[in-house]
Amino acid sequence: MSFSPLIVRLMDALQCLPGVGPKSAQRMVLHLLERDRQGASQLSEALKAAVEGVGHCQRCRTLTEKDICDICTHPERDGEQLCVVETPADVLAIEQAGGYSGHYFVLMGHLSPIDGVGPEDIGVDQLLAQVETDGVREVILATNPTVEGEATAHYIASALRKLGVKVSRIAHGVPLGGELEYIDGGTLMHAFAGRRELVD
Amino acid sequence: MSFSPLIVRLMDALQCLPGVGPKSAQRMVLHLLERDRQGASQLSEALKAAVEGVGHCQRCRTLTEKDICDICTHPERDGEQLCVVETPADVLAIEQAGGYSGHYFVLMGHLSPIDGVGPEDIGVDQLLAQVETDGVREVILATNPTVEGEATAHYIASALRKLGVKVSRIAHGVPLGGELEYIDGGTLMHAFAGRRELVD
Repeated sequence: MSFSPLIVRLMDALQCLPGVGPKSAQRMVLHLLERDRQGASQLSEALKAAVEGVGHCQRCRTLTEKDICDICTHPERDGEQLCVVETPADVLAIEQAGGYSGHYFVLMGHLSPIDGVGPEDIGVDQLLAQVETDGVREVILATNPTVEGEATAHYIASALRKLGVKVSRIAHGVPLGGELEYIDGGTLMHAFAGRRELVD
Repeated sequence: MSFSPLIVRLMDALQCLPGVGPKSAQRMVLHLLERDRQGASQLSEALKAAVEGVGHCQRCRTLTEKDICDICTHPERDGEQLCVVETPADVLAIEQAGGYSGHYFVLMGHLSPIDGVGPEDIGVDQLLAQVETDGVREVILATNPTVEGEATAHYIASALRKLGVKVSRIAHGVPLGGELEYIDGGTLMHAFAGRRELVD
C-alpha cells in the first residue's frame, strides 16, 4: 500500500524543485495537507500567476512581468554604463550591494557549447545592437569567475572591441573578511596580478 | 531595486514549505521560471487538486481522497489487529517494512496540552468506538518513542483497558545495524528491560 494518487502526484510534482528529493517531498506534502492548506493554495496560485505573467525584459532580458523592467525605465540610472551578468539573481546581488547605478544586460546563462548554448542563446547580438544605439560608454563584464563565465566574458569582450567601447571585467581577488590561508591558489594569483599601488 | 511583484509573491509563497528559506526560495523561483515552467504549472495544478481532493479516511483518519482508504477497504487485511500511529508517513513506513497486515488508526498528531491538543483532537473517542464495534482483538500502539508519543500511548492504553482488549506497545531497543557504542542510554535500558530468553 502506498499513498493515494493525488498525494503521489503532488510528491512527484514537488520534485521539480531544485534540492527536493522523495523524502523531503513527502515531508512537504504531509506538512501542507495536515497543517497549511491555505499556504498550499496560495503557492498554487502564485505559481500559476508567475508562469503566466513573468516574461523577459525587452531591453535587459531579466525576468519581469512588464515589457521593460523597472531598472531599465528608471530615470535616474546611468545609461552610459552597462553591466553584463549571467542571471537575474546576479542583478539582485549587485543591487543589494549598492553603489552601481547603471543599466544591466542579463545573459540568462553562459556560453556552453557542450549543452548547445551559443552566442545567439545568450543574446550577444541584442547586446551589441544596444551598445551601438544607446550611447553606452563602458561595458562591465560581471559573469561568474568560472570556466564558462570567463569564456563568455572573453567572447563578449572581443565582439565589443570592434565597436570602440570601453570594456572592463570586475576584479577577482581575496574577498573581504577572507583569510589568505584558506584562499585557493587561483584566487591568490588573481589578487597578485591585480595589485594596486598604494599612494599617500 | 528588487525582483518584480509576481516573483516576490512566489518567493514568499514557497517559504510555506518546510525547510525552505529566502535563499532556497529564490533559487527555486529562478530555476522554475528559467528552466522548468512546465514543472511549475504541473506543481500548481497538483497542489490545487490535492488541497481540494484530499481529506481524511472516515475509519482510520489517514489522508486520502476517498471516503474510506484503500487499506481499510482491503478484503484481505486482518481487522482484528489495529495499529495506532501518529501520522500517514508512519503508515507508509510500516507498509514498506512489510509483515503487518492489520488495520491502522492514524491520530494525526499526539497529545500535547501545551499546544492545546487534547484526546478529542487525536480521535480517541472514535478509536474506542471502533475497537468496541469492529471486533478488534489487539491494539498495537506504535506512536513515536518521544515524550509526547509515550504519553499518548499511555493515555490510549488506559482508556482501552476498560474495553478488555489486548493492548501492546512496539518494542524499543538497539536498531539493526546499530552499534552499542553509539546508542543512547535510554535506548540501551529499553533493550535490557525488553530482553528475551534464547531458547534452543
